[in-house]
Amino acid sequence: MTGGEAVNGLGVAARGDEPRKPNLAVVGATGAVGTVMLGILSARQDVWGEVRLIASARSAGRLLSVRGRQVEVVALSEEAFEGIDIAMFDVPDEVAAQWAPIAAAKGAVVVDNSGAFRMDEDVPLVVPEVNAAAVRIRPRGIIANPNCTTLSMIVALGALHSEFGLQELVVASYQAASGAGQSGIDALREQTLKVAGTTVGEQTGDLRAVIGDNGPFAAPLVLNAVPWAGSLKDDGWSSEELKVRGESRKILGLPNLRVSATCVRIPVVTTHSLAVHAVFEREVTQERAQQILAEAPGVVLYDDPGAGEFPTPNDVVGTDPTWVGRVRRSIDDPNALDLFVCGDNLRKGAALNTAQIAELVAAELTV
Amino acid sequence: MTGGEAVNGLGVAARGDEPRKPNLAVVGATGAVGTVMLGILSARQDVWGEVRLIASARSAGRLLSVRGRQVEVVALSEEAFEGIDIAMFDVPDEVAAQWAPIAAAKGAVVVDNSGAFRMDEDVPLVVPEVNAAAVRIRPRGIIANPNCTTLSMIVALGALHSEFGLQELVVASYQAASGAGQSGIDALREQTLKVAGTTVGEQTGDLRAVIGDNGPFAAPLVLNAVPWAGSLKDDGWSSEELKVRGESRKILGLPNLRVSATCVRIPVVTTHSLAVHAVFEREVTQERAQQILAEAPGVVLYDDPGAGEFPTPNDVVGTDPTWVGRVRRSIDDPNALDLFVCGDNLRKGAALNTAQIAELVAAELTV
Repeated sequence: MTGGEAVNGLGVAARGDEPRKPNLAVVGATGAVGTVMLGILSARQDVWGEVRLIASARSAGRLLSVRGRQVEVVALSEEAFEGIDIAMFDVPDEVAAQWAPIAAAKGAVVVDNSGAFRMDEDVPLVVPEVNAAAVRIRPRGIIANPNCTTLSMIVALGALHSEFGLQELVVASYQAASGAGQSGIDALREQTLKVAGTTVGEQTGDLRAVIGDNGPFAAPLVLNAVPWAGSLKDDGWSSEELKVRGESRKILGLPNLRVSATCVRIPVVTTHSLAVHAVFEREVTQERAQQILAEAPGVVLYDDPGAGEFPTPNDVVGTDPTWVGRVRRSIDDPNALDLFVCGDNLRKGAALNTAQIAELVAAELTV
Repeated sequence: MTGGEAVNGLGVAARGDEPRKPNLAVVGATGAVGTVMLGILSARQDVWGEVRLIASARSAGRLLSVRGRQVEVVALSEEAFEGIDIAMFDVPDEVAAQWAPIAAAKGAVVVDNSGAFRMDEDVPLVVPEVNAAAVRIRPRGIIANPNCTTLSMIVALGALHSEFGLQELVVASYQAASGAGQSGIDALREQTLKVAGTTVGEQTGDLRAVIGDNGPFAAPLVLNAVPWAGSLKDDGWSSEELKVRGESRKILGLPNLRVSATCVRIPVVTTHSLAVHAVFEREVTQERAQQILAEAPGVVLYDDPGAGEFPTPNDVVGTDPTWVGRVRRSIDDPNALDLFVCGDNLRKGAALNTAQIAELVAAELTV
């Protein structure tokens, strides 16, 4: 089938009757997530009419490749949303808070990957494998995409919840540098260059003296672990930790789910990992949990430690699914499972899930 | 006071009456922990007569510095324990299993840092800040030093347990390369050299192609996280995870403590970190928990995230205490605390705790 033509069952082109393909805007097209998004749009089934690339004024005029064509980036403005049906936003919270309602007022359905709307009662928070139906109720014309840390585990947990009934989560994260955007990726590469060739004594001395600038992180990241992501909220919790709690509750539809998260950044470029302790209403078995995960859409079970099989970020980066390994029933609680989960924070954790939501909306608009 | 002399209250030397200082053997003196041990023996109050350095036959004859003197390493043999009062072992499990009973039979009290005796009912497992009195009951003449992962958190947990009554631990570890010994340190340095200067594309491609050999790890460690340490035990648990459970129970004297651990290696040279979720019998408050930790011997509370204060491995490496930050009361459970804990796995996690146990025994022998 050639572009722009629909073919009926008899092989006759029905050009005049075909529904118009929706026009898509990518807002924040030049960032770390935006870059992955253009790759994803180029690789997935093409359901789009125009794909318009929008970024800040200083990126306007740049040419980026999407769907095999060079497209010029336009500056963010009200007019930039003219004729757009669906607008995917990957921009800072304050930019999304200002511009998503403007895009919605211009008639676009907004799929927003910032934190600005996720906990808004009138904005659904959607993971297609878990709560696809929620996209249809969007009184503000905005659908929110979860935080990358929540997204890196929630597909696997949704599958287990359906069978066993989730009651409690205790989560420790191993978050990648790219969760802090392109500046995080650049900072880790720069820091790695600076420590390479130093002595073990220097590597276990003050790393600040070796690397200079911490970049966007609260401490040196290379050869270190930084138990901090986001901003300080009440009682010592970080915004990132509260997102894991609030978003898991909302996506799973469990307003009383008990959640404790400790969010830690480690020197990995891309792919978040999480050690998850999940307590269920019903008794679990390792075998049944593995079976559920092996069959769940969007999940890869990679769990044979005797054969060296467990997911690591380097196995998972660049792939779409949530990878799960180290599935164990807790020795002291027959209702609890311990897991190690990895997800590419730029793909399923951001761009891919946003694209999946946009495709759900597109299917609805064109039906 | 000059060496070898004791002075009574009148300033008169009482050379003939002074108790002999005990002779110490360091078995495994040339390893990663042994090297740190010699530094610790040189820095702490010197309670020892002879310090004899013992290693494998291939290291015999090497000269190592301890207490400001060059000492020649002797080969491990039955005769090497002649005249030794206390022998500290840091050698592989199978070497300890064979040689610790031989040293004990020669009259030495053995303080062993291998896994060979830790769960033996006739061998106390000791952390001086938590259960010092246990050193006195040692029917086999052997005292065990806990695994470095358990040791990196247990001093802090012991203090909290005394006040609140510990019931359950959910632990995720961020373990350093040096937990795998000198070969782990060397492998991480080598891998860091190899990835430095590669592109982000190469860093998020197959790292095996860049680094070649994984060293002692089950996957590439640099720019990665490896959810595996130790060997495979029943039901998918690793030996490291079972050590955290079994040893925490034994040290705290809580045979029914519920423990779930997920042990993960990350690219840090030295200092293990742990995200700990601890559930207590009694209700906790953030303020009281912080107060207990601030006052606990062997613990540093470093917990003001608004001022950028939380422990990272690079802050802690080379120091003696257990550092604790990110102290939070769980939002959904008034009886639970979430913490981030760091401890130098070669010092408190191995050599320092071994030295502290040996000093406890030395004090008893010379009284």
